[in-house]
Amino acid sequence: KMLRRALCTMLLVGALPSLAVSQGHISVVLLGATGDLAKKYLWQGLFQLYMDQVSSGHSFTFHGAALTALEPGQKLMFDVLKNLPCPLDESPNRCAVLKDQFLKLSQYHQLKTAENYSVLNREIETLLRQEGLKEAGRIFYFSVPPFAYTEIARHINSSCRPPPGAWLRVVLEKPFGHDLESAQQLAAELKSFFREEEMYRVDHYLGKQAVAHILPFRDQNRQFLDPIWNRHHVERVEIVLKEIVDAKGRTSFYEQYGVIRDVLQNHLTEALMFLTMELPGNLSRAEEVLQCKLQALQALRGLEKQSAVLGQYQAYASHVREELQKGQDYVSTTPTFAGVLVHSDSLRWEGVPFLLTSGKALDERVGYVRVLFKNRAYCTQSEALRDAGHSQCKPKQIVFYIGHGALNTPAVLVSRNLFRPIMPEGSWREVAGQPELHIFGQPLSEYYVYNPVKERDAYSVLISNIYHGRKDFFITTENLLASWAFWTPLLSSVSHQAPRLYPGGVENQHLLDFEMVSGELAFTVAEPAELLNTDRAMPSEYKMIQSKFRQSPLVSAWPEVLISQLASDVEKTANRAVARSGQFHLALSGGSSPVALFQRLARHHYDFPWRHTHLWLVDERCVPLTDPESNFFSLHSHLLQSIRVPYFNVHPMPVHLNQRLCVEEDGGTELYAKEIAALVANASFDLVLLGLGTDGHTASLFPDSENGLEGAQAVVLTESPIKPHQRMSLSLPLINRAQQVFVLVMGKGKHDVTTQISRVGREPRKWPISGVSPSSGQLVWYVDYEALLG
Amino acid sequence: KMLRRALCTMLLVGALPSLAVSQGHISVVLLGATGDLAKKYLWQGLFQLYMDQVSSGHSFTFHGAALTALEPGQKLMFDVLKNLPCPLDESPNRCAVLKDQFLKLSQYHQLKTAENYSVLNREIETLLRQEGLKEAGRIFYFSVPPFAYTEIARHINSSCRPPPGAWLRVVLEKPFGHDLESAQQLAAELKSFFREEEMYRVDHYLGKQAVAHILPFRDQNRQFLDPIWNRHHVERVEIVLKEIVDAKGRTSFYEQYGVIRDVLQNHLTEALMFLTMELPGNLSRAEEVLQCKLQALQALRGLEKQSAVLGQYQAYASHVREELQKGQDYVSTTPTFAGVLVHSDSLRWEGVPFLLTSGKALDERVGYVRVLFKNRAYCTQSEALRDAGHSQCKPKQIVFYIGHGALNTPAVLVSRNLFRPIMPEGSWREVAGQPELHIFGQPLSEYYVYNPVKERDAYSVLISNIYHGRKDFFITTENLLASWAFWTPLLSSVSHQAPRLYPGGVENQHLLDFEMVSGELAFTVAEPAELLNTDRAMPSEYKMIQSKFRQSPLVSAWPEVLISQLASDVEKTANRAVARSGQFHLALSGGSSPVALFQRLARHHYDFPWRHTHLWLVDERCVPLTDPESNFFSLHSHLLQSIRVPYFNVHPMPVHLNQRLCVEEDGGTELYAKEIAALVANASFDLVLLGLGTDGHTASLFPDSENGLEGAQAVVLTESPIKPHQRMSLSLPLINRAQQVFVLVMGKGKHDVTTQISRVGREPRKWPISGVSPSSGQLVWYVDYEALLG
Repeated sequence: KMLRRALCTMLLVGALPSLAVSQGHISVVLLGATGDLAKKYLWQGLFQLYMDQVSSGHSFTFHGAALTALEPGQKLMFDVLKNLPCPLDESPNRCAVLKDQFLKLSQYHQLKTAENYSVLNREIETLLRQEGLKEAGRIFYFSVPPFAYTEIARHINSSCRPPPGAWLRVVLEKPFGHDLESAQQLAAELKSFFREEEMYRVDHYLGKQAVAHILPFRDQNRQFLDPIWNRHHVERVEIVLKEIVDAKGRTSFYEQYGVIRDVLQNHLTEALMFLTMELPGNLSRAEEVLQCKLQALQALRGLEKQSAVLGQYQAYASHVREELQKGQDYVSTTPTFAGVLVHSDSLRWEGVPFLLTSGKALDERVGYVRVLFKNRAYCTQSEALRDAGHSQCKPKQIVFYIGHGALNTPAVLVSRNLFRPIMPEGSWREVAGQPELHIFGQPLSEYYVYNPVKERDAYSVLISNIYHGRKDFFITTENLLASWAFWTPLLSSVSHQAPRLYPGGVENQHLLDFEMVSGELAFTVAEPAELLNTDRAMPSEYKMIQSKFRQSPLVSAWPEVLISQLASDVEKTANRAVARSGQFHLALSGGSSPVALFQRLARHHYDFPWRHTHLWLVDERCVPLTDPESNFFSLHSHLLQSIRVPYFNVHPMPVHLNQRLCVEEDGGTELYAKEIAALVANASFDLVLLGLGTDGHTASLFPDSENGLEGAQAVVLTESPIKPHQRMSLSLPLINRAQQVFVLVMGKGKHDVTTQISRVGREPRKWPISGVSPSSGQLVWYVDYEALLG
Repeated sequence: KMLRRALCTMLLVGALPSLAVSQGHISVVLLGATGDLAKKYLWQGLFQLYMDQVSSGHSFTFHGAALTALEPGQKLMFDVLKNLPCPLDESPNRCAVLKDQFLKLSQYHQLKTAENYSVLNREIETLLRQEGLKEAGRIFYFSVPPFAYTEIARHINSSCRPPPGAWLRVVLEKPFGHDLESAQQLAAELKSFFREEEMYRVDHYLGKQAVAHILPFRDQNRQFLDPIWNRHHVERVEIVLKEIVDAKGRTSFYEQYGVIRDVLQNHLTEALMFLTMELPGNLSRAEEVLQCKLQALQALRGLEKQSAVLGQYQAYASHVREELQKGQDYVSTTPTFAGVLVHSDSLRWEGVPFLLTSGKALDERVGYVRVLFKNRAYCTQSEALRDAGHSQCKPKQIVFYIGHGALNTPAVLVSRNLFRPIMPEGSWREVAGQPELHIFGQPLSEYYVYNPVKERDAYSVLISNIYHGRKDFFITTENLLASWAFWTPLLSSVSHQAPRLYPGGVENQHLLDFEMVSGELAFTVAEPAELLNTDRAMPSEYKMIQSKFRQSPLVSAWPEVLISQLASDVEKTANRAVARSGQFHLALSGGSSPVALFQRLARHHYDFPWRHTHLWLVDERCVPLTDPESNFFSLHSHLLQSIRVPYFNVHPMPVHLNQRLCVEEDGGTELYAKEIAALVANASFDLVLLGLGTDGHTASLFPDSENGLEGAQAVVLTESPIKPHQRMSLSLPLINRAQQVFVLVMGKGKHDVTTQISRVGREPRKWPISGVSPSSGQLVWYVDYEALLG
């Protein structure tokens, strides 16, 4: 009834000519209309939308909804609406008139039961029929906790869909899951109710004016950026959101999520994508933008535990204990601060460090994206005599200043020695700013500085984009899942790691400074002892056992520590061999465990003597070398293509001679044996890396194998019980000539065989691995805790 | 007589007890005793030596010598000696006494004829006999122009050698030649008179206290520097000597030498070696130091014309015209300013830019060596709230400040956020300095700053080292020739290049600023038109002719321009092929001309789609692939080892099957043909690069070859008239299937054949190259001016 009255009033007023040529009616339903977000931003955004679009030809009604009963709900909601401020850039008269209209077009509904939704639907239909309006579409804005999503989605889908020809847009607020699995589950549920194009997942960062301008900036300044927006010119990128507030009062949420899920997985990742994605030819094609963004996400290199530094402000534990009624012994490992080093493997960005940082209880509130360019210039004139503004020796940077901090406004800054950017005049204006203010080591006067002509709240920007159907301002399902796929491994690997404690605020001093050390992150100063909460149980992940296994040395640890130890032992062996003979002959096994070693060597061992290393295969599957099943292919993908071994030093097994696979007459085994004899002194490898199969096999020497367990043959063809059956392998006698043999065993799946092997004697027919015993060399076992202890 | 009196007086004075236990007598002969260098530095250095060593147990006589007759020479010389100042750190009394002795021990000789030298020798012998002194050694200091060297050396060798048991040290001053050839010649001449260990070639920079301390600093601070003194941590190194003075009054020397020979080849190169050389275990072993230095020199990557930016101050030409009586049309290309980008290919320094800069008529006088470290830190605390001194986000640098400039004293500076260095207390002391002074972008207060306890002139330091026989403070013949071998190619390639003109002094503004652009140097601002001397003939080196040759497109230019054009055309072809088919099949020829192309591609084409490129060989010599004669080996050294092509995409010719070379039964040709058929669509390469032999051969298809000029065979064995005779080659019919064929022809030696070929029709039996005519592809000729025009 109220709605009808409102509409009538509006039509009677008739002061708004556009209504005469209606483009159709739009119903906006705000679910959670009396909640915090709605109060703070959403109603204001809807009011702004109304003011902007009142002359667009569309007519509107606004439906606030909540679980609260009608009367109190109405009161709560209209208290909010009445207090909506007028924007500074709007004439007070016009605003007053429009606000009055807006109130009349707005109505409260209790939406609890299926029946409630049906009623709402009928009311909208009735209104449209009565007023003779064509329906353009419906917007449902979910400002409710995620547990309520499914229920509401079901009701909308079954009772509130607009008729054919009109669109449905449902707007969803994060969190969108907690990790990849939960995000997939939620996505699957939503998919059963809505089509992809109907869903608008909000990341309000995409509505921040400085963030929203990254892509247009790159597009409009292509002439300047094309040559420099790449790894050859960009030194590093910092994407930062610092907060002063802590998590007090929000620990029930925060304790489950932490800073990575709360900020990095969404806000900072989105900004990262805008920076790294390839620019589509035409920015106005949302489809292309989203496609490029997805590709950029997929090009990110996987994170490791060492990619991050984590902190927790000291009072956090007590906040959690108080708010969640936990005991004094409750230990939280939830990070409230994180710095993460991200790399892209795209050709454009390979090697450029992207530092994502966010935290609570820090010294200031600020958000920015800073692109620092390499300094390649030498200035002959001495500093004192230089014209600072144009000196190529000053820092060169582009900053998208999101807000707060020293500038306290969104801004785009470009160093004057870079270029004068092209900025859209209607929306950004050049400002002088305070010249004495220093931003990132440069006085403000050394930048071109732009501020938005109108400062707009992120939600206003996003609501306008929902109205315009601009899907590139929102997170698609693919995008969301790709982001979770990227972050989940890091989240899992650090879930039990104790973050560094920090006092909070300016007292943090240098405690949270961190630096890049050979592809990893580490805090720059050691953790001061007085800050360590000695009550806290410290996880024992870095422990390493050095002991004996089958009478040989055993190294055991958690997987990452084990691999890093193994890699550094391989490097030591290599350096010794090169110092002794000028060469290092290394024979490597296939399988999954060595992949971690290959990656470790490729990424962290820059001084490995690759130029003097010969790489041999311990065994190979009889498939072409370019087949992803090939051991060599795996070695190539994970190691060879990242390092520089001379071509002549790479020795794949000749399993593919004369265009056929492992045919005995082709003499592949003899050929490989000859190559070994010709290059490896005494056919004694400096190091052979072996694995262990659950059946006790090693190399491709399986139990009861006819070949290779004994005899004179150096290289043999064998049969595997698993596909592909045909294999080529070094023989046990050849392996036992090596100077050094490392056996790597990892994972729970290997626990049983590890236990067995620890007990048996030398029985190579039954347990081929038990025949490994270098006659004059050394054998070392690298076994992770899961394989060793189950 | 005077000498005897002097010695007697000294012995009578008897105040110097050490003379009682004489370690032997040292005669110092200063040739050019009345010249500028002697007046300014050498006599002072000898006096300092005397003061320092008067109690050492050695006795001394000092013999000034010149061409001037005895009487006027004596007067000239003693005027200098009488005016020698006392060092500030010496007590005036002791100094006065010692100066009196020094004068008495000094004598002037006219040394002109052979007889003069014999007389000098007899006088020394007589004195020693009369005084009953044992001879320790003789020092001959050549402070004379280099043209006089040979004559003097001959006289010393034949008439003035000390008796067996005493040493001879001859001290030589630069210039040591003008380029590699002249340096070799001079070295050979000197070698016929002196043994290597007798020669002390002076580079006075090695006596500058800050330069002389580089090695001890690296040695004493190994604990801090070991992890960071390498390419992973060093961002760049600047080695700089700037002067305010111009060349006026010295153009007769300068016009022949220029800034590279005057400063870079010697002073700056020596400093560079101290920075880049590996540290020997024991610095006191001069032999080891010199060996490491030589290795560092040999590890430098060859310079190209584009490695340098050159300038000439505007008034230089008129100075030359006046002083050398040249006409108004005289054009000088002698650089008075140079910036050179040097790279080392050592594992430690690969990729680190070393910028060597020097010039006259600049804005200030200063010399320094600056090592700037990479900034790998992110500081979470905002700038304003940081404790500057220890912030890891401030620049990190180590500066060896040679002198003058803002500090006006030798100094060693280490950023406080790096480490507090260990400095030898006796010779260097920590100072506070003016905190408001900024050095390299940091206030002085952010450095640990050290000054020498006693400032010593470079010549005093060097003369002391000659006395101590410390050969590592001097330039060995090997070292000298290695340095010339490094610099000569650049000097030749820029000898006709017009340097940029600059006004001089502070007016230079940003005109001489330069920057690194993909491995080359370029000035950062364009040359303003008003400075260009329009009278000056501009060399036409950058001209490029685009025309026709044998009905096909012809590109012709000077070699470097031609190669850079070819490389960029290859990249364009590659990008087109990859865009079209996802792959680029490139067949490359052997020989010397393509090497320049390989290097260009490796160093300047970072965005080449290598990952999608397949590399094939056009022809191969029947030698093992690891033989330096192998075409593949050359391709590997100059291209493959610098880029990242997947292993599977590299296709060397199978000339070495079954451990034997090009045996027909091994079927290498069929194997390669099969590989091509399997991978290259239609066996049509995207691009084939060919060369041209003086006999008209191309690929390894020689005139009257039985195979490959026609017929169905894709790959053939052929016979070359030159060794190694056996070859494998793609056939002409296969080459003619290519999409694109580029023929590269370079050098005067190819002029005749180029002329011939331009006239003949299609006669592949006589001129195999004339049979190249892609049936549906394009042929382009790249011929340099020398080959085209003779």
